[in-house]
Amino acid sequence: MFRPLVFLSLLFGVMMQISNYAKADEGMWLFNDLPTKLLKERYGFEPSRAWAEHLMKSCVRFNVGGSASFISSTGLVLTNHHVGSDTLYKLSTPERNIMDVGFLAQSNDQELKAPDLELNQLVDIKDVTAEIQGAVTDEMTTEQAVAARRAIIAKIEKSALDETGLKSTVTTLYGGGRYHLYQYKKYTDVRLVWAPETAIAFFGGDADNFEYPRYCLDACIFRVYEHEKPAKIEHFLQWSETGPKENDVAFVAGNPGRTSRIFTMDAIKFQRDLSLPYVMNSLRRREILLQQYGLRGPEQVRRARDDLFGVQNSRKARLGMLAGLQDPQVLSDKSAAEKDLLAAINADPKLKPLASAWQTISETTAKRAEQLGKGSAVNSQLFGIALELVQMAEEDQKPSGERLPQFADAGRESLLQQLYSEAPIYLDLDQVLLADSIAKTLEQRGFDDSLSQEILAGKGPADRAAELMSGTELLSVENRKKIAAGGIDAIKDSKDPLIQLAKIVNPEVRRVRTITDQLDEQDKQAYAKIAEARFAVEGTSSYPDATFTLRLAFGPVMGYEQNGQQIPAWTKIGGAFEHEQKHQGQADYVLPASWKKAEASLTKSTPFNFVSTADIIGGNSGSPVVNRAGELVGLIFDGNVQSLSGNYIYTDKQARSVSVHSSAIREALQTVYGADGIVKELGK
Amino acid sequence: MFRPLVFLSLLFGVMMQISNYAKADEGMWLFNDLPTKLLKERYGFEPSRAWAEHLMKSCVRFNVGGSASFISSTGLVLTNHHVGSDTLYKLSTPERNIMDVGFLAQSNDQELKAPDLELNQLVDIKDVTAEIQGAVTDEMTTEQAVAARRAIIAKIEKSALDETGLKSTVTTLYGGGRYHLYQYKKYTDVRLVWAPETAIAFFGGDADNFEYPRYCLDACIFRVYEHEKPAKIEHFLQWSETGPKENDVAFVAGNPGRTSRIFTMDAIKFQRDLSLPYVMNSLRRREILLQQYGLRGPEQVRRARDDLFGVQNSRKARLGMLAGLQDPQVLSDKSAAEKDLLAAINADPKLKPLASAWQTISETTAKRAEQLGKGSAVNSQLFGIALELVQMAEEDQKPSGERLPQFADAGRESLLQQLYSEAPIYLDLDQVLLADSIAKTLEQRGFDDSLSQEILAGKGPADRAAELMSGTELLSVENRKKIAAGGIDAIKDSKDPLIQLAKIVNPEVRRVRTITDQLDEQDKQAYAKIAEARFAVEGTSSYPDATFTLRLAFGPVMGYEQNGQQIPAWTKIGGAFEHEQKHQGQADYVLPASWKKAEASLTKSTPFNFVSTADIIGGNSGSPVVNRAGELVGLIFDGNVQSLSGNYIYTDKQARSVSVHSSAIREALQTVYGADGIVKELGK
Repeated sequence: MFRPLVFLSLLFGVMMQISNYAKADEGMWLFNDLPTKLLKERYGFEPSRAWAEHLMKSCVRFNVGGSASFISSTGLVLTNHHVGSDTLYKLSTPERNIMDVGFLAQSNDQELKAPDLELNQLVDIKDVTAEIQGAVTDEMTTEQAVAARRAIIAKIEKSALDETGLKSTVTTLYGGGRYHLYQYKKYTDVRLVWAPETAIAFFGGDADNFEYPRYCLDACIFRVYEHEKPAKIEHFLQWSETGPKENDVAFVAGNPGRTSRIFTMDAIKFQRDLSLPYVMNSLRRREILLQQYGLRGPEQVRRARDDLFGVQNSRKARLGMLAGLQDPQVLSDKSAAEKDLLAAINADPKLKPLASAWQTISETTAKRAEQLGKGSAVNSQLFGIALELVQMAEEDQKPSGERLPQFADAGRESLLQQLYSEAPIYLDLDQVLLADSIAKTLEQRGFDDSLSQEILAGKGPADRAAELMSGTELLSVENRKKIAAGGIDAIKDSKDPLIQLAKIVNPEVRRVRTITDQLDEQDKQAYAKIAEARFAVEGTSSYPDATFTLRLAFGPVMGYEQNGQQIPAWTKIGGAFEHEQKHQGQADYVLPASWKKAEASLTKSTPFNFVSTADIIGGNSGSPVVNRAGELVGLIFDGNVQSLSGNYIYTDKQARSVSVHSSAIREALQTVYGADGIVKELGK
Repeated sequence: MFRPLVFLSLLFGVMMQISNYAKADEGMWLFNDLPTKLLKERYGFEPSRAWAEHLMKSCVRFNVGGSASFISSTGLVLTNHHVGSDTLYKLSTPERNIMDVGFLAQSNDQELKAPDLELNQLVDIKDVTAEIQGAVTDEMTTEQAVAARRAIIAKIEKSALDETGLKSTVTTLYGGGRYHLYQYKKYTDVRLVWAPETAIAFFGGDADNFEYPRYCLDACIFRVYEHEKPAKIEHFLQWSETGPKENDVAFVAGNPGRTSRIFTMDAIKFQRDLSLPYVMNSLRRREILLQQYGLRGPEQVRRARDDLFGVQNSRKARLGMLAGLQDPQVLSDKSAAEKDLLAAINADPKLKPLASAWQTISETTAKRAEQLGKGSAVNSQLFGIALELVQMAEEDQKPSGERLPQFADAGRESLLQQLYSEAPIYLDLDQVLLADSIAKTLEQRGFDDSLSQEILAGKGPADRAAELMSGTELLSVENRKKIAAGGIDAIKDSKDPLIQLAKIVNPEVRRVRTITDQLDEQDKQAYAKIAEARFAVEGTSSYPDATFTLRLAFGPVMGYEQNGQQIPAWTKIGGAFEHEQKHQGQADYVLPASWKKAEASLTKSTPFNFVSTADIIGGNSGSPVVNRAGELVGLIFDGNVQSLSGNYIYTDKQARSVSVHSSAIREALQTVYGADGIVKELGK
């Protein structure tokens, strides 16, 4: 499945590119630049402005890294179980493990308030390219460019916020070729209405993940509130009576997190040979660590599970990406296209200067390779809070435009919602994570390194982590607020051992951050040139790489061939019971009791999951799938394994997006969960 | 537990050193150089020649990397379940999984013949130092020294074999200070008599592994045959009536695999900062890979389990070693001792030239660091067979003394027993391992490397592995024999795709092997100097580092303090039932049905496991523990987590070896398994 953890790769800078030699249904299109001509030609469909605006405003972004949609005027929000699971986990206790047993509120007052969920509804997009490009000039050093770009973005965001009250974020598109201001209405009172058991939401577990055929009810429903009442929602999706037919074009509106489709070959080789293998090692390390922690007992299994699922998912996704890049046939097209483009650029005196961009990226890539695994990996939830408190106090000494972007005024509310979250943090788990990350820092920097020694303070990693965790008072949100209120003096005087450790590590974190920011800036300028060159050579009708902002993708519902076998587009609810039979004795293939109880009443011919060629990636999880009429026909929850190399190269041969069928959700709500109240609200 | 996989570290060269500033019960003593004075002073015990010879000849070494002992004149051999598990696994089928359900032969004809087990009984040790040192002179280049040493060792081994018919192996002791010829009687017809269920042999699973208190019946019994009849054994251990008492000195006779106790600080830092982290990444990678394969179904879980257990065990052992080295307090003593020794050497004009050894090791260590993760990691059981066939054909062109040591005449029988083993190889599992190791090779060498490209032959790792596995005929032992019989021409002409791949990879494997051999030779010469210096400064009453040859260790049976709590030396059989209760809902804490059925009949006060300070390490698994009278009182199966840094530094403060109590084995045989026949044979 596509999970928030896909954003680990953001470590290496957010870059976006263009691609206009689109194959078939390739494309994650901007809502303010939809491919109307293409849609008309290929599907005879002309989306009206109203159709697009309605769909855009019916969509919701989950701040934890997923997508969703409004499905009623009464504030109901549909997303994946695995997007909601961060909240399901935070709302669970040893006595009531919502992940295991699911949840259904029988009335509004039973709905459970999420401790720190923020939902964003996109309401407006403005092009601010001229303003930003004007503030960064060719004469500037990289350092000056970083500062100038940061300042103008902070200013634009702040004045947009002041003017409209909307959450305002500047998004870099086409790697720096365009800058758009996205404005969101924010919902921070979000309550859980319904969630099924993980056993059916993630039926088949890690083994079936990224595979197809599937039988997953990967869905859950929240409700947004305003002023303690269900919010009144103007734009929401109607529930389709029937769902899509085979070969019907399906539209997917959601927030793909990141693609890297026109990384230069140098950048791709860095991913293939160094970055992905490094990240895989880190993920496997964390996976084993969490498994080991879980061996302590069932409660520890529960505490670690959400993180463990995320890590496993991320590990499997990256393995698929790496497998794509390690296939000699996959990259040969790409390499040839790059050669052609460079030849065209070099043949045109006006374009020729742009070719230097490839050299720039070759150089920044080499520098990124040097950085890999050299930093400090100290990590834990509480340490993260400590470091954020330290940096916030320091940054708040400066004007908003000079701060690290996450501390600028425009994003302060969202920052504090996370920092002051009352979601549980488990000290024993956090200690295990801290000890391991200290050990990893020793491995990365060398034991004899001076920062390593300062971190250890004379103890081994396990003993040091125990000492830090037993001494810290940051578990209390009140204490965090107190320290934040005290500003830089409170940080200076703090006796909290995690704050003290954060102060030790902070200069190195900042040093690495500065390097990364400068590499990102150089890449932005380089990719802007590449974008310019491509616009000139290949024309401008294209889409930018994914940026975790709202996009439209589309493609017909259709099966595919695999190992000589035709995989049908559909599965049926009855298939889940057969799938269980076929996998007897395997822990992840046991249907929940609720389903077994309801088996006789279920209409087994109801479509369960389906695939389409729509171009999606991590972050699209929870995206509504709609038909031409704009009705909800499905809910994206995964891509098959063949789609994973789509991070770099789209193909529609076997790559498919995987959705829960709208009818399956309704059938389960009614027949398995007795959630008639919800069903009555749908589309009303 | 201490498992064969500990030998992964042999990758980095076998080195041994001396240590004579022994603390308390430190020491893995040579049977031809027992510390009689020390034993008399500390325990008032003087082992007679006969006592020592009887114990030595009662011991058995398992070629898979463990220890054992004869326990009857009728050929019964006692070892750990986890030492026998390689064979239990090979004897299992989907229909009869001995690992799960255990095994008991009711009569000789029900005993199951191991497909490829070789047991070695040490019968003689000769000092051949002069002969070997005489063949390698100071004037030789490293390359010449490698060849000269290889030739003289092959010659000594071959003539000893010819003379006695015994398996003859030269062992390098004190890092090159001494060379001893070990001669073994070989048993290759070994049959399984009894094994309990893994559920009780490994009760508590990965979580309890390397922990104490424990409740494990980690034992199984084989019988050696000669000429299709149970072998008549002269030297075997009597079964103690009562087992040891608290504070009784316990003697452990077994084959510790490897220690690195006087690695120079440079060599230790290499382990800590580079080698162990690298190996940990490899182990975690394989662990996840095997877990993922197991998700395919219960039969795949069975197929992968022995390997998975081994990897998990190795990962946990290494984590313990690394934690020891990452504790600032652990290494400070060692560092200070090295400084003192160097000061003494430099102060003595005669010794001063020896100080260059530290520089040599600093240099070889730097070269090892360069090699780390640069080679080809292509791997699978069938690929290993292919590579062995290719190299054997090449090496057999040369006289025995010039071959790579494993292909010399003296070891040919053992080599072929492995090569022609009828033990099952599962193609699907082997394919998964091959695909992953190809992918790893791409990561280590870079995708664009020419060898990487030759290995891939235009396909991605998964497709390439599928192609190779579907084309090979090496699953058939007859085919292997045919190729081996055809010699170098058969290799040249072979169309088998794995043979062809082995020919592609072979030059690189040889190149790396040559580098490693030369580094090992340089280290041998350097450590010989260090040994000489230490003999001169600190005296000669010491023991060499472990070399997977028979050693005697000893120390009292006694508990220890941990986190302010006194851990008793003993557990009792009744404790296993309480332990199960305490861990309800955890898969690895479920006692087998046989134990639940027998619960009422069991004498719950029978001692189950116990600890002593005897100095052991991986390879000692299955070692008999005997009392002053030479009677069997226990069976080594583990060391606690505090003992793991014993690879580098012995401490008796908390470090303990963990044994199954002899009475627990007898009680279980009688009461749980109804193995009265075996019990009657014990010590008879």
